Amino acid sequence: MSGNLTYRESGVDTIEAQSFVYSISSHVKRTQKNRQLYNAFGLFAAAYDLSSYKEPVIVTGTDGVGTKTELLFEQDMPETAGKDLVAMNVNDILTTGGDPLLFLDYLGISNLKTETPRITRLVSGMCDYLESCNCILAGGETAEMPGVVPENLVELAGFCIGCVEKSAMIDPSRVTVGDVLVGFSSDGFHANGWSLIRRILAQQPGLLTREELCSALAPTRLYHDIVRDLRARGIVPKAYAHITGGGLPENLERFLGEKGADLTIPYWQNDVAQKVLQFVDTEDRFHTFNMGIGWVTIVSPDQVDAILTAGSGGCVIGQIREGRGVHVSVAR
Amino acid sequence: MSGNLTYRESGVDTIEAQSFVYSISSHVKRTQKNRQLYNAFGLFAAAYDLSSYKEPVIVTGTDGVGTKTELLFEQDMPETAGKDLVAMNVNDILTTGGDPLLFLDYLGISNLKTETPRITRLVSGMCDYLESCNCILAGGETAEMPGVVPENLVELAGFCIGCVEKSAMIDPSRVTVGDVLVGFSSDGFHANGWSLIRRILAQQPGLLTREELCSALAPTRLYHDIVRDLRARGIVPKAYAHITGGGLPENLERFLGEKGADLTIPYWQNDVAQKVLQFVDTEDRFHTFNMGIGWVTIVSPDQVDAILTAGSGGCVIGQIREGRGVHVSVAR
Repeated sequence: MSGNLTYRESGVDTIEAQSFVYSISSHVKRTQKNRQLYNAFGLFAAAYDLSSYKEPVIVTGTDGVGTKTELLFEQDMPETAGKDLVAMNVNDILTTGGDPLLFLDYLGISNLKTETPRITRLVSGMCDYLESCNCILAGGETAEMPGVVPENLVELAGFCIGCVEKSAMIDPSRVTVGDVLVGFSSDGFHANGWSLIRRILAQQPGLLTREELCSALAPTRLYHDIVRDLRARGIVPKAYAHITGGGLPENLERFLGEKGADLTIPYWQNDVAQKVLQFVDTEDRFHTFNMGIGWVTIVSPDQVDAILTAGSGGCVIGQIREGRGVHVSVAR
Repeated sequence: MSGNLTYRESGVDTIEAQSFVYSISSHVKRTQKNRQLYNAFGLFAAAYDLSSYKEPVIVTGTDGVGTKTELLFEQDMPETAGKDLVAMNVNDILTTGGDPLLFLDYLGISNLKTETPRITRLVSGMCDYLESCNCILAGGETAEMPGVVPENLVELAGFCIGCVEKSAMIDPSRVTVGDVLVGFSSDGFHANGWSLIRRILAQQPGLLTREELCSALAPTRLYHDIVRDLRARGIVPKAYAHITGGGLPENLERFLGEKGADLTIPYWQNDVAQKVLQFVDTEDRFHTFNMGIGWVTIVSPDQVDAILTAGSGGCVIGQIREGRGVHVSVAR
């Protein structure tokens, strides 16, 4: 007996895969203008030469875009999904004071042929953000999984590797009482809390117009401009925090130990966000959303003036005090 | 108006997340016996010190387990999914001659509370393999996405970072005519071609017993023993190839350029695999499955004797010749 089923007949098309690789190649190239991969022909992994570093410490993390992905695809905004994926990962790397060097993506889809236009747009969005922060799209896996990944959905995971000289590494254990917290604005909800937002939108179907929803879906801000500006001025802050799920309290408490802070943040001037927030428990909102502050830099008091003009500008939101716990109130 | 929806009510439970982190902590520790993360308290990324390397080149890649995942979960084999995830990524890193140092996983699930027992077993399988090849589980993201990830499914992506001294890096461009290909056995289908296998099993429901199916689902072999043995003997091969989707032809042609090989591999002594293969196109099977050879080492003829006893032992399957293309036939 001789069989006759081919891999293509079972729903996986390796030719189509080559076509997808071609369709994204110009975008990938954009991410290698200033940094290049180490020439490593024929290996099954991407390589990057770190021999110019004196005492390199590599830093790495992984993140996804969560349930926001579904809404982004419903609204035909795959470029934003790509930007969110990059920003969620790169911002975490930036908290170390390091350079984001290499980014890899994992896309799980049901059908490569039907998805190629959309995931090409997704990769172009990724490369817009990667190009802006000088990080190479070093690899990726596009897994075609018919019958496993629901049709019309793209599973998304990102991975980033950065490097920092040991002597220049941010050390949050240096934070002391009296240090100042400077908050930098977010561009919206970013990529956290969307299970809750989706539930509210399901319960209040007319709450947001399509235009308002798209504005609420703005991509996570990339905070490399702040880190770059501070480095250029020779300022090494005590800590950086990327405000994601858990909000300001959890993302600061994770390294404050027995210290804490009572923060006063500006009212979030974002009409669409406020429309949604009215349906969220008044305490829980601070533990779920960034509430308008997506990045926090902690510095000693003498560095505050310099830091306020880094990136697109921050504002003082509080000071470190003795005693556990970060509490947030809104300025009136 | 004041709302009252909390994040937990929308299906995302951050307390449960902490409980999961606790349940895997003993497994994670097992991966840090011989290597440790660089102490970097409070950062949003994992750090590893490379300053003991003279000219470090980092190598990285990402991969998943594909549609095999679904069958593994149907058969209650989450540990195997974890091993597959590690092996698919670590083997790619090993092709560079480098050490796998850091591994990160991304798990997308619908409900953390119901999935915690299963993904804890999955992580324990990952850590079994990571421990055996001295690679740290440096981080991971478990994304709870109710309504997005289908219930009873776990989306899986893995990511590995390795490092190699520039002078010790494998360089497949050194492969020349006359070099010898030594194949090392696979432990089954590994993690490729399962869309096709699932289709065959759907068409032939009685083809495999449950026991046979579980044996076909054996985890991808980790080939670090071969690389370690060769390094210990000071042998630097010309190339390593990890045989995944595309089979022997595609995974060798990718670096052979104008050269090629006519390979003769042993008959695959795997009754369960042969039962499945009888339903697969006779040509396509070599381009979809590893056909019993999951790893190839290419060496100059004088190194063949030494290489045949590396790891659990290989066999000569051919020699490099002029002319494009890798063709495979089975020894009679």
